[in-house]
Amino acid sequence: MQGLDASVPVGVGDERTYQVEPLKVALLGCGVVGTEVARLLTSQAEELTARVGAPLELTGIAVRRLGRDRGDLGVDPALLTTDADALVARADVVVEVIGGIEPARALILRAMEHGAGVVTANKALLAEDGPTLFEAAAKHGVDLYYEASVAGAIPLLRPLRESMAGDRVTRVLGIVNGTTNYVLDKMDSTGAGFAEAVEQAQALGYAEADPTADVEGFDAAAKAAILASLAFHTRVSAADVHREGITEVSAADVRAAQQQGCVVKLLAICERVTGADGGDAVSVRVHPAMLPLTHPLAGVREAYNAVYVEAEAAGQLMFYGPGAGGRPTASAVLGDVVAVARHRVTGGRGPGESAYADLPLLPMRDVRTRYHVRLDVADRPGVLAQVAGVFAKHGVSIETVQQRQDDAGRAVLVVVTHTAPDAALSATVDELGELDIVDSVAGVLRVEGGDDR
Amino acid sequence: MQGLDASVPVGVGDERTYQVEPLKVALLGCGVVGTEVARLLTSQAEELTARVGAPLELTGIAVRRLGRDRGDLGVDPALLTTDADALVARADVVVEVIGGIEPARALILRAMEHGAGVVTANKALLAEDGPTLFEAAAKHGVDLYYEASVAGAIPLLRPLRESMAGDRVTRVLGIVNGTTNYVLDKMDSTGAGFAEAVEQAQALGYAEADPTADVEGFDAAAKAAILASLAFHTRVSAADVHREGITEVSAADVRAAQQQGCVVKLLAICERVTGADGGDAVSVRVHPAMLPLTHPLAGVREAYNAVYVEAEAAGQLMFYGPGAGGRPTASAVLGDVVAVARHRVTGGRGPGESAYADLPLLPMRDVRTRYHVRLDVADRPGVLAQVAGVFAKHGVSIETVQQRQDDAGRAVLVVVTHTAPDAALSATVDELGELDIVDSVAGVLRVEGGDDR
Repeated sequence: MQGLDASVPVGVGDERTYQVEPLKVALLGCGVVGTEVARLLTSQAEELTARVGAPLELTGIAVRRLGRDRGDLGVDPALLTTDADALVARADVVVEVIGGIEPARALILRAMEHGAGVVTANKALLAEDGPTLFEAAAKHGVDLYYEASVAGAIPLLRPLRESMAGDRVTRVLGIVNGTTNYVLDKMDSTGAGFAEAVEQAQALGYAEADPTADVEGFDAAAKAAILASLAFHTRVSAADVHREGITEVSAADVRAAQQQGCVVKLLAICERVTGADGGDAVSVRVHPAMLPLTHPLAGVREAYNAVYVEAEAAGQLMFYGPGAGGRPTASAVLGDVVAVARHRVTGGRGPGESAYADLPLLPMRDVRTRYHVRLDVADRPGVLAQVAGVFAKHGVSIETVQQRQDDAGRAVLVVVTHTAPDAALSATVDELGELDIVDSVAGVLRVEGGDDR
Repeated sequence: MQGLDASVPVGVGDERTYQVEPLKVALLGCGVVGTEVARLLTSQAEELTARVGAPLELTGIAVRRLGRDRGDLGVDPALLTTDADALVARADVVVEVIGGIEPARALILRAMEHGAGVVTANKALLAEDGPTLFEAAAKHGVDLYYEASVAGAIPLLRPLRESMAGDRVTRVLGIVNGTTNYVLDKMDSTGAGFAEAVEQAQALGYAEADPTADVEGFDAAAKAAILASLAFHTRVSAADVHREGITEVSAADVRAAQQQGCVVKLLAICERVTGADGGDAVSVRVHPAMLPLTHPLAGVREAYNAVYVEAEAAGQLMFYGPGAGGRPTASAVLGDVVAVARHRVTGGRGPGESAYADLPLLPMRDVRTRYHVRLDVADRPGVLAQVAGVFAKHGVSIETVQQRQDDAGRAVLVVVTHTAPDAALSATVDELGELDIVDSVAGVLRVEGGDDR
C-alpha cells in the first residue's frame, strides 16, 4: 500500500503488474484477535500487497460501541463503526472475529449476499450451523475460510481439506483446547488436583473465570465437529459429538496413568469405523483418555495444541503449535484473508464444503474403546476370579491385570481391557461397582493411541 | 469414475452437477512413487471425482522401457508408453515422478506449453532450476505444485505458502532427510558408530547402497533451498546452501551431546537474519547440530521427518510425519493433483512463485552460530586460561566450560559458546588445535534450537 511502486511487477506468479485498486477488508469485532488482525493488516501492508497482487484496505472495524479505550491499534480510530450492516455491504473480504451465533451469522450471510468472501474464526457457529454458511457461500459463489476456528495458528484445515484431498483419512486425534491441556499438564507435572490446577490456570490467564466451556469439553466438541466434517466429507455438528469433560479427572487418575506409562489428555477423536451395516461410519467424541508416553501427542505440554492424523497412504502426521492467543489466531486469519483476496484478483475459489461421503455416525455405545479400570477391593482370595467373571459376562477381553496395594495399604486391582463396545465396558463397570468384594470403583479412563481396533 | 451417477450433485462447494468430461492425467515415471500414484488414482476414483468435481482419467504412464515386470499396478498395461512427449501433449494434468534434471525438466516445460498443470515431487530439479519452471508456469498460466518434494507426505509447502501468507516467517528448522535421521537416531540409541549405523540403515532399506546424497547432505540441501524460497519469498537454489553432512559425526560426539542434554540431528536451517547492511537477509544451511532434548524436533525418531517453523505472529509450529516412501509421497502428490484438477474445473490458479522480497543471502562465515567444542588437553594448571584466551582473542564469548576426565582418564575440556560469527568460531577452533597444551580437538558441533540470536 504505502511506498510500493504500482508499476513494478511483484511476482505473485505471473508477470503482469499488480492491481492498483485496493481490496476492501471489513473487520467485524475488535477484541484480542481483531486487534491483532488490524495491526497485522497495517504493519505488513507492503508484504500483503505483494502476496495478494493488490493492496488490502482496512475499510472499517465493526464494534458494539464506540469510545471504549482500545489501546494502540495502529489504525485510524475513524475506522471504528457500530453499523456492521453497512460495513459488510461495501467490503470485498469480511473478517468475522466476533464469535458466538448472532449477530455473527446474520452478518456473514449478509456479506455473502453482497458477494464478499468471508474469513471467520467462529468455531461455535461453524459447529452449530456450518451447513447454512456453506450453502450460502456456494449459492453466492464466494469463499468461506475458517483456518483459525480450530487450533489457532496451526495450519490444519488447509492441509486436511487440500493437501490430503487425494488420501483417505482414518483417524484424527486432537489436543485442541489449550486450557484443559494446561490443567492436565499441571496435574501431571505437580501432582495437583483438578480444582487446584484450574486455579493456577486462571491465575495465569489460561482459563476463564467461568471455565465451563473448556473443562466440560464444549469448546473441544465444536472443534471435533469441524475436524470430522473435513476429514470424512460428512456433515457433523457439535450436537453429534459425544462429550465428556475433565472435571472428574482426579490426581489419582493422573498418577495411575503415570504408573501405566501414560499421560491423561483431553482428546478430540474422529475415527472412520465400521458401522452397523458393515460399511464405513464415523465416530466423533471428546473425552479424557490415557495416552502412552510414546505417542507423539503425549509430549504436548502446557497450553499448546496438536492434532495427529492417520491416513491410509500418508501414514501418521502431526501438526503442533499454539492453539490460542491473539497473535497466533490473527496469523491464521490473515493467511485466509490472503487466500480469499488472491481469488478476487486472479479468479477461482477455494474448495467449498465437501460432504459427499455422508457417512453415518456411530453412537457412542457401539464405538469400540479400551478401558482402564481401578478397583478398591477386598484383600482375599477369589477376588480376581469374580472380577474377571464380570468382564467375561459382558464379552470384554482383559489385556492386563495388576494387583497391588495403594498408598493406604488397601488392595487395588488395575484392569486394562482390549477394545470392546463402549456400552459393554460401561455395563461392566456398573456391575463391578455392585460386587460385595469391590469397595469402590476408584477410577475409569479410556485408553487411546493404540492400534488394536 | 465407475458407478457414479453423473446427474447427482457431489458437493464440491457449489450446487451444479459435476463435469462429466474426464480430466486427463499423465504420469511420468513408474517407480515406487509412480506405482502408488497410479494405484491411488484408480482405487480412489470415485472419491477423487467427488473432490475434484470431474472424473480423473489416467491417460498414460511414461516409462523408459516397456516389458519390465511392474507387479500389480492395478492399471491397464496398455497405458504404459515410452513416448512421454506425446503423452504430455494430450494431458490436462501432468504428474512428474521421474526425478533428476533431464528429461524431467524438458517434459515439464513441454507440458506447460501445452497448457497442462504440473505436479512434481522433484526436489533436485526445483532446487537447481526452480525459476525456469516457475517462469514457464506463469507464462503459460498453469499451476505448478510440488508438495511431495519436501518431507514426503507432510503437508508443509501448502501451509508455508498459503496458511502463513499473512505472517512473517523468521526461522525454519527441518529434519528433512529420513536416512540421516535414522542413522543418527541409531547412533543415539545404541551407541553405534557412523559406519555401523549406516550398515544397519542399508540392511533395513533406509539407506541406499551409495548413501552419498543423504549422508553428505545433498538431499537435505535441495529441500532447504525449497523451504527457504517459500518461507522468505526469495529465490534460493541448492548451490546457495551451506552444506555439511554427517560422515564426521562420531559415537563420541553423540555421547557428548547426551551429556549436554542434547541429541545430534542433521538440520536444514533457514533463518531470517540481520544482513551486513542492517537490513533483513537470509541464512540457509545444512549441518549436523546438537539440539536440546526439550526442543520439539529432538523427539523425532527413526526415519521420520519434521519441520519446525517460527513466525512473528503464529509463534512456534511443528509439522511431523513420514518423509519418504511410496505411499506417503503418493498421498502428497495426489493432494496436489486434486488442487490442480479442481482449478481446471472451477477456474483460478494456485499461488505461483513469490520472490518479491529478494533478500540477500548471508554467507556462512557471517552467520551467528554456537559451537560445542571438546578438547583433549594436558592435565596441568593454566590450561583453561590459555584456552579461554583464544576464545577471547576471536571475540567469542563462552557460555559454559566443563573440565572432566574421559573414559581413558585423560583430561577433557568441553566448551559451549554464545553465538558468534561462524568464521570467528572456526578460526578459534583452528587456533586451539595449534596450542601445545591441546592434544587434539576431539569434536566440534554447532548447537541449535536456542533463542539467543
